[in-house]
Amino acid sequence: MNAPSLIALDWGTTSLRAYLLGADGVALDTRASPAGIMKLPAGGFDQAFDETAGPWLDAHPDLPVIAAGMVGSTQGWVEAPYVEMPTDADALVAGIVTVAAACGATVHIVPGVLERDTLPNVMRGEETQIFGALSSDASLNAKDGALIGLPGTHAKWVFVRDGRIERFYTFMTGETFGALRDHTILGRTMHPTSTLDQAAFLRGVDIARDAGHPGVLATIFSTRTLGLTGQLSAEQQADYLSGLLIGHELRGLNEVLAREQSALTGKTLRLIGNDALCDRYRAALARFGYTYAQTVAHATEHGLNRIAAQAGLITAPVRAS
Amino acid sequence: MNAPSLIALDWGTTSLRAYLLGADGVALDTRASPAGIMKLPAGGFDQAFDETAGPWLDAHPDLPVIAAGMVGSTQGWVEAPYVEMPTDADALVAGIVTVAAACGATVHIVPGVLERDTLPNVMRGEETQIFGALSSDASLNAKDGALIGLPGTHAKWVFVRDGRIERFYTFMTGETFGALRDHTILGRTMHPTSTLDQAAFLRGVDIARDAGHPGVLATIFSTRTLGLTGQLSAEQQADYLSGLLIGHELRGLNEVLAREQSALTGKTLRLIGNDALCDRYRAALARFGYTYAQTVAHATEHGLNRIAAQAGLITAPVRAS
Repeated sequence: MNAPSLIALDWGTTSLRAYLLGADGVALDTRASPAGIMKLPAGGFDQAFDETAGPWLDAHPDLPVIAAGMVGSTQGWVEAPYVEMPTDADALVAGIVTVAAACGATVHIVPGVLERDTLPNVMRGEETQIFGALSSDASLNAKDGALIGLPGTHAKWVFVRDGRIERFYTFMTGETFGALRDHTILGRTMHPTSTLDQAAFLRGVDIARDAGHPGVLATIFSTRTLGLTGQLSAEQQADYLSGLLIGHELRGLNEVLAREQSALTGKTLRLIGNDALCDRYRAALARFGYTYAQTVAHATEHGLNRIAAQAGLITAPVRAS
Repeated sequence: MNAPSLIALDWGTTSLRAYLLGADGVALDTRASPAGIMKLPAGGFDQAFDETAGPWLDAHPDLPVIAAGMVGSTQGWVEAPYVEMPTDADALVAGIVTVAAACGATVHIVPGVLERDTLPNVMRGEETQIFGALSSDASLNAKDGALIGLPGTHAKWVFVRDGRIERFYTFMTGETFGALRDHTILGRTMHPTSTLDQAAFLRGVDIARDAGHPGVLATIFSTRTLGLTGQLSAEQQADYLSGLLIGHELRGLNEVLAREQSALTGKTLRLIGNDALCDRYRAALARFGYTYAQTVAHATEHGLNRIAAQAGLITAPVRAS
């Protein structure tokens, strides 16, 4: 009844996650590999693909294969040129590029999305998650649109309406946090811990949101000076800095909305990402007055399944869209 | 007539600069050493001091010695506890701590300054440069005060009035630039050059100042996307990022001033720092409408000389204050 119908790959810079999806779009099996595209030797795509999806293809040689993420970038397996904004799922389908794997399978690669603007924006992989979320969460199809946050190395905030991506922003919050922690003076006084210090995190969020400060380049230095003056322990400093940066991200987003006579609190808002990070964002959003930011689960699988269906690779009905 | 009267040390984290000052406060000789306090082995202060100032002391054994900078921090030769705000030169003199060098000299260490606030701020070394500038540039003693910028790893903007430091901000602009360039994706597409691309730099400044963007965590990503879309060459990307960060620093400062019904353009403003960096800041300030930001030369020597005189270590008159 629920036989395997699709091999779906989320193939990014630092990892490869593979899903064996049933006809209902639910994963029957999953595999994770560290074979991100930046870690592969020349010609390494076939080997990584075989190691990850090979057993599934051995058992089901005719399964279609779809992939999204940096695998379609200029450094990827084959380039799937960006689709330009505004983008709907049909545009993504039209932009699919195929590559013939050495094992004989045809891999369908979903293109990323480019927004040409004074400050251009790009995504690869998130567009697929967005259309997965639109398939599975009807509230995102509200008439006045919705806002989807994808926390991470390069956090995205994506405005959707009428089944289309309208515009989006990228915040280098995660990568900036790592660079500041590991490669500036701020890391020298930090003691890493395995648990989140919620109070320190929210203190950072509140500083970013409220104070009459001169911006993030200034507030981050308080990670050090609050330590020097005995107001922030070594164990609290990383979570405080994390709160500062996420707070500045949300403040910046809220300021953009304010210029449009809107606000985070007036939006339908969802998150896509790992649970711990989404929990941080939910806690931070609450400090901005927003308390309904649910996480959309399985957005990646839903998105790959939906695009495969829309491309005619599988016959499964598109879910709830 | 102008015999050596003082050995003055600017001893920071990554370097040691030493001045043999004449009775008029002008350097008769200078020495530079890479022996910053973070580079010394345990007990290394005496050796670094001997190697740098030893020849001067051999020739003039009774010369007084004064030092400012991180040499007075908890990781320094001896801790000179922070003096609290608001601070004048007398408070710095009162906070001087001495250490007996192995060679027999007494080294007088100028304390740093701490501002206790919601976001505390600290400086070590800059306070001495500030009082040097106040000694040599009468316009900084204007009745309504002045603003002194000290670009660098941790840029400072210091409000002075009536011969006192009233308050200051720290921006981690230089260190954040280095961390982003060397340890994030932004550096991967940069080709370093030896000359400043002024147009790329100012483009970054203008983006930070003008656009309806959601803050620095978002604008920095355009370093990459303008490259991806062929609008910014690999050779331009570092200067563009530098312009963005310096632009965000000045924008943040200007926003603080705006909340006080003031603006950069309404201030008496000076810079202290190396010529190339001060040139960048001058060009950036011009985009904010400010065109009179002169560099105060020799602020370090003037400051060390002034504090030594005020402390009675030398009999030289304080210059022009």
